[in-house]
Amino acid sequence: MAQLLSDQRDQEFLLFEIFNIESFSDTGKFCDFNNKTCKMILKEARKLAVEELVPANKEADVNNGHPEGVNFINGEIKVPKSYHGPYENFCSGGWISMCDEEEWGGQKMPQLLAAACFELFMGSNPSFFNYPALTHGAGAIVKEFGSNLQKEKYLKNMFSGKWAGTMCLTEAQAGSDVGAIDTKAFKNPDGTYSIEGNKIFISGADSDLVENVIHPVLARTESAPSGTSGISLFLVPKYRLDENGKTTNIKNDVEITGIEEKLGMHGNVTCSVSFGSRNKCTGELVGEENKGMKYMFLMMNEARQGAALQALGISSASYANAVNYAKERIQGPQIIDAFKENPVKVPIIQHPDVRRELLTMKSLIDGNRFLTYYLKWCTDKANISKDNTQKEKLKNIIEFLTPVSKAYTTFKGIDITASGIKVFGGYGFIEEYPQSQFYRDVRISSIYEGTNGIQAMDLLGRKLGMKKGKPLLDLINEIQKSVEKAENSGLKNISEKLSKLLSKTGESAASIGKTASGENILDAFGSASVFLESVGDLCMAWAHAEKASTAAGKIESSGKKDKTFYQGVLKTAEFYYDVIVPESLGRSDSLKKITKTVMSMPEAGFASK
Amino acid sequence: MAQLLSDQRDQEFLLFEIFNIESFSDTGKFCDFNNKTCKMILKEARKLAVEELVPANKEADVNNGHPEGVNFINGEIKVPKSYHGPYENFCSGGWISMCDEEEWGGQKMPQLLAAACFELFMGSNPSFFNYPALTHGAGAIVKEFGSNLQKEKYLKNMFSGKWAGTMCLTEAQAGSDVGAIDTKAFKNPDGTYSIEGNKIFISGADSDLVENVIHPVLARTESAPSGTSGISLFLVPKYRLDENGKTTNIKNDVEITGIEEKLGMHGNVTCSVSFGSRNKCTGELVGEENKGMKYMFLMMNEARQGAALQALGISSASYANAVNYAKERIQGPQIIDAFKENPVKVPIIQHPDVRRELLTMKSLIDGNRFLTYYLKWCTDKANISKDNTQKEKLKNIIEFLTPVSKAYTTFKGIDITASGIKVFGGYGFIEEYPQSQFYRDVRISSIYEGTNGIQAMDLLGRKLGMKKGKPLLDLINEIQKSVEKAENSGLKNISEKLSKLLSKTGESAASIGKTASGENILDAFGSASVFLESVGDLCMAWAHAEKASTAAGKIESSGKKDKTFYQGVLKTAEFYYDVIVPESLGRSDSLKKITKTVMSMPEAGFASK
Repeated sequence: MAQLLSDQRDQEFLLFEIFNIESFSDTGKFCDFNNKTCKMILKEARKLAVEELVPANKEADVNNGHPEGVNFINGEIKVPKSYHGPYENFCSGGWISMCDEEEWGGQKMPQLLAAACFELFMGSNPSFFNYPALTHGAGAIVKEFGSNLQKEKYLKNMFSGKWAGTMCLTEAQAGSDVGAIDTKAFKNPDGTYSIEGNKIFISGADSDLVENVIHPVLARTESAPSGTSGISLFLVPKYRLDENGKTTNIKNDVEITGIEEKLGMHGNVTCSVSFGSRNKCTGELVGEENKGMKYMFLMMNEARQGAALQALGISSASYANAVNYAKERIQGPQIIDAFKENPVKVPIIQHPDVRRELLTMKSLIDGNRFLTYYLKWCTDKANISKDNTQKEKLKNIIEFLTPVSKAYTTFKGIDITASGIKVFGGYGFIEEYPQSQFYRDVRISSIYEGTNGIQAMDLLGRKLGMKKGKPLLDLINEIQKSVEKAENSGLKNISEKLSKLLSKTGESAASIGKTASGENILDAFGSASVFLESVGDLCMAWAHAEKASTAAGKIESSGKKDKTFYQGVLKTAEFYYDVIVPESLGRSDSLKKITKTVMSMPEAGFASK
Repeated sequence: MAQLLSDQRDQEFLLFEIFNIESFSDTGKFCDFNNKTCKMILKEARKLAVEELVPANKEADVNNGHPEGVNFINGEIKVPKSYHGPYENFCSGGWISMCDEEEWGGQKMPQLLAAACFELFMGSNPSFFNYPALTHGAGAIVKEFGSNLQKEKYLKNMFSGKWAGTMCLTEAQAGSDVGAIDTKAFKNPDGTYSIEGNKIFISGADSDLVENVIHPVLARTESAPSGTSGISLFLVPKYRLDENGKTTNIKNDVEITGIEEKLGMHGNVTCSVSFGSRNKCTGELVGEENKGMKYMFLMMNEARQGAALQALGISSASYANAVNYAKERIQGPQIIDAFKENPVKVPIIQHPDVRRELLTMKSLIDGNRFLTYYLKWCTDKANISKDNTQKEKLKNIIEFLTPVSKAYTTFKGIDITASGIKVFGGYGFIEEYPQSQFYRDVRISSIYEGTNGIQAMDLLGRKLGMKKGKPLLDLINEIQKSVEKAENSGLKNISEKLSKLLSKTGESAASIGKTASGENILDAFGSASVFLESVGDLCMAWAHAEKASTAAGKIESSGKKDKTFYQGVLKTAEFYYDVIVPESLGRSDSLKKITKTVMSMPEAGFASK
């Protein structure tokens, strides 16, 4: 059971052989991170995940609402008891602020390395890891936009895990329509603000893991314009701080009014929070008034990539468990032996349909791992690059691919974990076995941090047309290089199909982009999700081409164990191109002419009275 | 909330306008079932579903394992309290034996009509309905293969719901490999058998709804050959019967040893059952020794079509709730108004991406409703036909399409209910709202009654090649008629694409069939699920062509309400052909050349150690 998380060799393949993380260490910024150090850190992350987070995962799921699970007692939240030990070790290991500066207690890792650790933490216990991950997200806002005083007060305590952080956006009437938020902020004579309003769906809004909880709250000042341009961001602590920035025992009129029973993520509490119901809630403005959305959005890219990593981690754990089960579960003989006398019964991994299911899962997981890591590679590369053109290009690609990665990886996570259940047969439906929890937990990732529908609108409405389409062109150029690489590696089937898919996706983009800028704009948005999926399909094909080309170049000269791994990479790529790419080509075809049916369907035609 | 089940008008469209159920009433067998009677019965079924079953659905789900949910106390099962009232009405309404002969308390309905009722019961409360549905399945075995004495003893009590029935196949080592079962049957001098063995995953193995439970148990006699040809079928009551066939209070050594906590279907108990642990379990043989699998298999087609109807009913409920929510939930302005001053905010059903999601759900549900009803229409038609060639042809099509319908409808049920969550946004993940339960409940239907992998093997290994491929040819001929009908109805886009998909599917069938009969048979089985999916895709396209052709012929002359409905049918069909058929064409392409990667992937390549 110990290693039933993301495939270690594939993580290393990406970090060390595809993305060459050691090359970052040539620059001053990441000089400490040679391959050896990176491997050691990855190993430590896996150890923590396997030894501490996995064991606490199931208990918190099963005991939802029960004595050992999340409890809501006297207005306060008790997280699962099994989380306390791991949380202490998580914090003392410095895992909250992996990539941040040393002055705030950070480890200064490349994002690429941190992503691999993030994937392991999410795969082992997403409910647990969401507590520190949100704390980091909230801290990142302070680091980026807070005053020096605010940084001093909040940052070290948050990045060390002594205090927690949240994200307080959603209100009952304001979900995807974040501009509709109604929480008010009234300026006080001392420069602080009084906050009044009710938030819902607040993850980790309270916990007994920490001394204090800092809520970044989106709210409107009295003179604010309507919509998103009138939103400001405030830091609202659960307990007031004294003049030295220490937590006092004076409550700040932040009340947990309820917790949700959810499909999954049972160990991570989701709260309704009332701010200022007794007119005693005080917060500090971050940056300037009315710029709250801009501040939130800067961290949103990180959160969206985080959602993709969450789905990737959970999908990987589902797959690892499925492979393990398929190797152990004996059921029936091989088909070709079925009519023999007393045929030998075999582990189900030898049955063709189970192999196909596993290959489908693996090809999607490996493709999505490439995509999510690639975005982190771009981030690091842009971070250290001294070439402004390259920096710009990398940032463009990140902007373009972030909604794709978020929506595609989380959406495929549903399919992959459903397959995980399939491989387990009847046992997949039983809560005693792990697959059911993966299937339930993964479902949130396509909803939060902007639903997948919002991602599709972002891709079509903002990213496709930005800078006259340059981000997509930059991406196409990168993929074109992989076409050539595959051809040079003797992978003709792959290079030809990737080239075909690439040009079809280019045509789809032109077709939907043109429709979006004309009078039929609504038709275009009616196909936005299909377009996003077809860009995601292209990225998967690209990933397998890149991986297969690298594997093909190394397989001859490698030892037995590596050879098997590279064979696996090549077979997975061939499978993807044989079985799944034809579907992707078809999906892309559907965008040649943007359907008008989505908007012309009469509303009363959806359902009869 | 009252009507949030399968679309009533679409059910009526299929029954009365597409499949013309009244034509059955020309024959003596179904002479009572004119349109008026059928409508009245459908209305009664919906009333029962809406008023009694829906309210009991949530309570049983939430209180799983709690005082009001399923309880396992002193070796006996207490079903949810809320089930008792509805069960009484369900039984007294005669809904258990809708299609059976009057002598056994049946209603003699056409299967087609019963399917529509079945869909409503499954959509409103699948956990509840599984109790009587299983009872009927067990009773059907007795009716078909039992002795006259067995029929007298068991049948009326089961079909009236006084006693329950189960299906006892699975053992820990024998899931899909049913030939591996190990339960023993020892013949006693009086002709009865002593049963000894342990079964798992037994749905409804005990309940306080009934006076007695009759278990059809698969077991081996002492001299039985190994594998499936050595399996016999026994009737094993929970309480012994006296010489008059009445239930006594003497227990029959059938012990419930545990119940499962499951992903969904919380109101339907899943038990481990021990037979004869004190050597006191007695059963009666049904029919002849060693023919148990044959008996079980005859009812298996019904059970498989039942699983499809379950997924259809749940998917329909998920969709109806999604449409309802989308009409009520206000969120943000239309995209084209987004930059106006104070834009009007609209219900999300006006947002393009939500409309696309709903149309995707609807097109799959409506297509699957056509497919499942079509199989029932074939059954009724074969039942009343006096033309042996037609009878044969209809039976062939039923054989061929049953695994397709079972696997495709249940598989798509996962996608559809995942979409139901999507439309609800964050509320979809919260158990207080209905979508989460649909998503959890529907997952079982692709596992039980033969996993979807088993269905794919059945389609490729048994059905495709049977009678020299005649079943598929018969189906192709039927679909060809729809191509012509669509063309004659002026639906050129549809007729052309359906024709293309039909010929591609024919080619795929030839390709995979040829591979399956050669030395690369394992490769063929590695693509069996893809083949099944592509046949299912074809059936969906066929369904929309048939429905659109009929709607097109009626739209001009119809009143306002019907016109809107027919417009909806036409738009849904066009959407399906614009957006989804291109993908299906691609999937079919992937079968032109059967991939060899599934079998050549090295086992160690699936996951690194």
